[in-house]
Amino acid sequence: MKYIFGHTKPDTDSILSAILYSNYLNSKGEKSKAIKLGEINNETKFILNKFNVKLPETIKELEKNSKVILVDHNEEKQTISNINELEIDTIIDHHRFNLKLENPINIRAEKLGSTCSIIYKIFQEQNYDISEEEAGLIISGIVSDTLYFRSPTTTEEDKKIVEELKTKSGIKNIEKYSLEMFNAKSDLGDMEIEKIIKLDYKEFEFGGEKYGIGVIETTNPEYIFKRKKEIVEALSSIKKKENLKGILVSVIDILNEHNKTIVADEHEAEILRAVFDGKEIEHNVYSLGPIISRKKQIIPKLEKHFGR
Amino acid sequence: MKYIFGHTKPDTDSILSAILYSNYLNSKGEKSKAIKLGEINNETKFILNKFNVKLPETIKELEKNSKVILVDHNEEKQTISNINELEIDTIIDHHRFNLKLENPINIRAEKLGSTCSIIYKIFQEQNYDISEEEAGLIISGIVSDTLYFRSPTTTEEDKKIVEELKTKSGIKNIEKYSLEMFNAKSDLGDMEIEKIIKLDYKEFEFGGEKYGIGVIETTNPEYIFKRKKEIVEALSSIKKKENLKGILVSVIDILNEHNKTIVADEHEAEILRAVFDGKEIEHNVYSLGPIISRKKQIIPKLEKHFGR
Repeated sequence: MKYIFGHTKPDTDSILSAILYSNYLNSKGEKSKAIKLGEINNETKFILNKFNVKLPETIKELEKNSKVILVDHNEEKQTISNINELEIDTIIDHHRFNLKLENPINIRAEKLGSTCSIIYKIFQEQNYDISEEEAGLIISGIVSDTLYFRSPTTTEEDKKIVEELKTKSGIKNIEKYSLEMFNAKSDLGDMEIEKIIKLDYKEFEFGGEKYGIGVIETTNPEYIFKRKKEIVEALSSIKKKENLKGILVSVIDILNEHNKTIVADEHEAEILRAVFDGKEIEHNVYSLGPIISRKKQIIPKLEKHFGR
Repeated sequence: MKYIFGHTKPDTDSILSAILYSNYLNSKGEKSKAIKLGEINNETKFILNKFNVKLPETIKELEKNSKVILVDHNEEKQTISNINELEIDTIIDHHRFNLKLENPINIRAEKLGSTCSIIYKIFQEQNYDISEEEAGLIISGIVSDTLYFRSPTTTEEDKKIVEELKTKSGIKNIEKYSLEMFNAKSDLGDMEIEKIIKLDYKEFEFGGEKYGIGVIETTNPEYIFKRKKEIVEALSSIKKKENLKGILVSVIDILNEHNKTIVADEHEAEILRAVFDGKEIEHNVYSLGPIISRKKQIIPKLEKHFGR
């Protein structure tokens, strides 16, 4: 049995690519199971409901020597807690690689807008027969991770795949569907503030120190900024509790393609000014302009700033 | 233009996979050029002559920002000297991964016996029309890297690929051909002893210290052991010159699948005794028994011994 999972704070692309790849392996007679390491967001919930797909079980630790397939991530800091006791069989990812392994494994990485795009290419190469539901899931993963082609991570291949699968998926208007997805994602109700910060949150190491970087992609940034004071307090508390050198949360206004980043204190503010030429627009909030991709626009610049 | 190359001490699999992948990209209209970072061995020379294939040019440093494709290696220590000034486009490899990148790239890694096996799978997936010469090169790469299926790195897929390509390649008797390859490789004539040690030589970091590990695969181990005194002296001199914590050279008797490893001094001897239960069979020479794969049998054990 191979367990397939995305990162600890799963986004739509990581959940859907795990489900899709598990379908494919099972069809070949290789027993596998998509699981998740943390709770899904409202966008993913909306998509799974729409296509009537079963929610993967949450498992935080696997039995020693279990075989695992990592999708949509590769860094130790972002994966299952007892990864060092497990056997990594395969990694499928579109992020930059940062890993040190003892043994050869299978890796498939491509500079595409989503992991679902890579999964689609594997399906094509292996002549896997894609169902209507699977076509819908692939489109959803691509639309989610590229913010409907707004993100600079978008490639022509991602657009082509959505075009190719459109008819089969039964989704009539992809733009309208993308808005439904993004509105679902933006509906945070009275969610606890720490949960909101951690919805799409990853830890990175820069200059030997731990940083936490959250992203809130939303069509309703007003909702977030109404709760700014709470957010700043929560950032400070997470920072202390988790021994971080710094913590940020970038609020991405999807429809206007604009980033306003909330910081805990002066240390992070200084980094934003130095690295992104960030302008303070209100206390603890910096405008980073059209910087909407953590992967392509935020992390590489921080890496460069802190040195490898 | 994309430059494609294997590691600094290129073996047959790394040279052939660079040539094959360049053929494929050029056929798609993506301009590319196979190059090499160091001199080829007599086995590779024999194969290129047989199939009348042009020897790639040696280039030790590329112009800043050149796009590169790494085949058959991924570690910084084993690649072109100015890698940090270049743009890595793709890595195709069957070794364990040890890399820290700033940006996403394309990676294709599989637990197969040779990089040429992975190249073949890409050809199949992309419906690339394989020529007689290319079939011969793929078979040669697989036979070389798996020591004609003797190495524990060999998979059923490697064997199947050789079977599938046999007719097209025009090679009548693969076993006979493998002996011709191995004999060519073993013909070291009066080569300088340091060159022999460095023919198939890689640097690794264990416990924060640099180690050099050479492998001499041969059908004629007597030739090597006649020059043992010279080898021990050369190991000591390389160790000092290159600031290594340790240096080893494993002499692999291909036909008898047996490893005798020559060490410079007591530090390495102690490691061989502790990690591989090595038995001293003559001064500075340890029998490691049927340990014939550096990648699968030597490096993982050393990694474990020294901790990650």
